[in-house]
Parts: sequence; C-alpha cells; structure tokens
Amino acid sequence: MHFTSEQRLDDGVLERSFTLGDLPGILWTPASAAASAPVPLILLGHPPLGLARMYPRLVGRARSAAAEGFAAATIELPGSGDRPRLPVLEGARAELRRALQAGEPVGDEIIDDLVIPLVDRAVPEWQALLDALLALPEIDGPVGYSGGVISIGVRLAVVEPRIVAAGLFAGSLVPRATFEEARRVAIPLHVLLQWDDEGNDRQASLDLFDAFGSAEKTLQANMGGHTGVPQFAGDDAARFFARHLAGRSDGEAAGTR
Amino acid sequence: MHFTSEQRLDDGVLERSFTLGDLPGILWTPASAAASAPVPLILLGHPPLGLARMYPRLVGRARSAAAEGFAAATIELPGSGDRPRLPVLEGARAELRRALQAGEPVGDEIIDDLVIPLVDRAVPEWQALLDALLALPEIDGPVGYSGGVISIGVRLAVVEPRIVAAGLFAGSLVPRATFEEARRVAIPLHVLLQWDDEGNDRQASLDLFDAFGSAEKTLQANMGGHTGVPQFAGDDAARFFARHLAGRSDGEAAGTR
Repeated sequence: MHFTSEQRLDDGVLERSFTLGDLPGILWTPASAAASAPVPLILLGHPPLGLARMYPRLVGRARSAAAEGFAAATIELPGSGDRPRLPVLEGARAELRRALQAGEPVGDEIIDDLVIPLVDRAVPEWQALLDALLALPEIDGPVGYSGGVISIGVRLAVVEPRIVAAGLFAGSLVPRATFEEARRVAIPLHVLLQWDDEGNDRQASLDLFDAFGSAEKTLQANMGGHTGVPQFAGDDAARFFARHLAGRSDGEAAGTR
Repeated sequence: MHFTSEQRLDDGVLERSFTLGDLPGILWTPASAAASAPVPLILLGHPPLGLARMYPRLVGRARSAAAEGFAAATIELPGSGDRPRLPVLEGARAELRRALQAGEPVGDEIIDDLVIPLVDRAVPEWQALLDALLALPEIDGPVGYSGGVISIGVRLAVVEPRIVAAGLFAGSLVPRATFEEARRVAIPLHVLLQWDDEGNDRQASLDLFDAFGSAEKTLQANMGGHTGVPQFAGDDAARFFARHLAGRSDGEAAGTR
C-alpha cells in the first residue's frame, strides 16, 4: 500500500489516496486518529460506476464515519474507473440495457453475468485491502462493511471473519446464488430499502432480508427512489455501526456529535 | 378530567392517575414540565389487555418520552380493565380463540368484529382525552400517537388534525376497512414490524405500509416475536418523535440524553 497524495478536509478528516498493487483507493481517518488509540474501520462499498464519479457520496459517508471516530476506506471495483474493462461485465451491461429498453424482464443469466464475476474478483481485493489497512498503526478494527453492491457485501460477510457488522443497501440486482449465501450470514445486519426504487425489485429485497441467517437483522424501508435515502436513515445506519464497532450505546455517542 | 393520585418517579417524572368522565387514565410529565414552557405530547396506545396489565410497558415508554422532554398519556380502552365488557368484542374474541385452537384461518368477519367496534368507540374517547390534555397549562403540543391497536392509530391519523406524527406497531389483525383508511393518512409515520411475530400476518403488514398515503413513512423490521422489539428500535422510534414533535435534528437532542 502506497500513499500517493493527502489532504486535510475542513472538518479535520485526513484523506489519503493510495494504490494497493495496481488498485487505486482512498482512506479517510478522523482528525484524532494519529494522536489517540487506533480506531475501528468501515469499508465503504459502492456501485461499479468508478471512484471519481462516486467520490461526492463516498466522502460524505466517510465524514459521517469519522464523526463517530471511525476510519473509512474504499477501492476501485474491477472493471470500473481507470481499471481495464472486463468483457463479461461489459457484455452483461449491454444485455441489461437492451432488455430494459425493450421492456423485457431481466433474466437470471444477465443478472448472474452482471454480478457474479464482479463479486468473485472484488472480494479478494477487499480482503487484501483489509490486510493492508489493519497493518497501519492508526487502525485496528473492529471492521464494518457498508453499502455498495449487495452481493459483494453478502460474500464478504460470509467469508471474512474480521468484518463484524454490515450495513447493506437493497438496491441492486441479486443473483440466486446470493440468496443461498445469505443464509450463511451470521453477523448483525442493517439493511436499507428504498420502497419506490425504480431499479430494484422490492419483493426480491424482502426475500433476501428474510433469507439472512443473522440473529440480529434490521430492515429499514423509506420512501423515495434509488438515491433518495433520507438523512435520518443515514443517521440510523451510523448508529448501527456505532453500536457494533465501538460498543457504545446511543446514550454514550461520540463526543463529536 | 380529575386527577385522582400522583407520584414522582425516581427519574423525576410526575405520574398522575386521572378519570375523564368514567374513563381511567394516566398522565406522565417530565420533571421540568411545570417550571418550563409547555411541552409536546405523545398519546400512548396499547392493546386491549387492560391498563393495569400494560402498566410496566407503558411507564417505560412514558419515561423515554419524558427523557425527550415530552408528556405522555393513555386511557383505558373500551371493554378493557375495569370498564364494562362489550358483548360484540367478547364474542369476537371467543371466535378468534376457537379459530386459532382449531387451526383455522381467521376470517374477515372475526377481524372486523374484533377491531371495528373497538376503533369506533375508542377514537372519540382519545379525541376527548386530547381536548382535556391540551387544556392543561403544562402541555401544548405538537401531538404524536404511538403504538397500540394499529387500526386505532390509523383512524386517529386520518380524523384528528392535532396529531402530527404517528409511530405504529404492525402487530395486530387489520380489517379491510383499515387498508382503505390508510390511503388517506398524510402525516409522517414510523412503522415497527416484528419479522417473526407469531400473531401477525407479515404480508398484510407490508401491504398496509405500502397503502399509507404519507410522503414520509419508514418501516423498520426487526427479528423476534411480538414482544421482542429490541431496545435500539425503541430508540429509533424515539428519534422519530424527537424530529417531528420538537423540530430537533438528532445532533441537537434533548439535554437530558
């Protein structure tokens, strides 16, 4: 992991760009992280639209994490941003566009091709990211995973024991294989669902929530479309991570709030 | 409204029993309410099991409301506690027990008889309660309604303009008529659903949530049975009322927290 640039944001958060092998990524640490004890970490998932395009939303989520005393980090997904395009994903996206334009239902095969190659490639990269981040003196966990492609979050929740809690966004197409993996998830989950998300199958999201094996799982559904998650829903998700990463009850919230 | 007894709870909350005509009820006000400006109010709904039996849960909810700076109040439901039994409700409850013991589905007619007479009688009583409470110098609104028989909450949300926000519990049998009324609800809603509630039809709860006309509505589903609502879900519901009754964002929570 090589840091390539850094800047201090107006709220004191330190933002550092890095490369991990060939992968570009960003790490945000709270103003206090260097001076105080090492901090917990939230991995910020995102849709495969490229880090540059996702940056405004990612930095907002990172600032919220920092306000709770947590570091946050993300990397570019396979086939996105400046990374080489992956023919299987490009082909599946073309098929998806064609099906949507034709008003046809999106078949299981398209969904599998859109998501499974992405999950298979991304998950080991996020695990390598975790190795690198946890080797830094200013970060020691526990680790949460938040948002992004829900099938990546599910796979990480199953295979990566260092992740102790996940906040998932029920807003993407879900292969059948993810439903099977969901039964093996055991960590606490906080699942956001936009009730009127035009690109999302509400019933599939409810079925996926039902499938999760976790003893503690919360579904929060709010009005509005894909990008219309209300501020208070973000606040509730932040409290979920505060409960599970810092062991704080709400009444003992971070002093920065 | 006549106060019949009062006690100061250990956290300073003033608990006063009262009668409103023939109806027994309880009013809780925060320690600060007498000295400071008049406070908002949450009406505490409850299932028709009698105030005495419900008291432990009600006083817990009242303490939470008081911690946010809100008064809370409740009255005995028609046919419950020491109030005269209502033959239509008693007959419907016997029918319900018989159907459940026989493993039969609970028919629409039983649900109608169980709920509609209760709603028709209770709603004007809660409106009279509101008249009496808002005449007290220590209370001035805004007013929220919380919990209890969901069809009572829905009717109050439709007919009572002084109620500005409602926290509902999707845990009771719902007549078809309530689905129709739900479309006319326009105030912000926070709906709790226990995902594995043995006495509740999950799909009916999701359908009811979908039916509500409110532009701001949140469904929060958690694991566990009817009485297993987790503490953090109660906290999230409390923040819903804090947002809508006190106009505070979470970052400006009451000084008592």
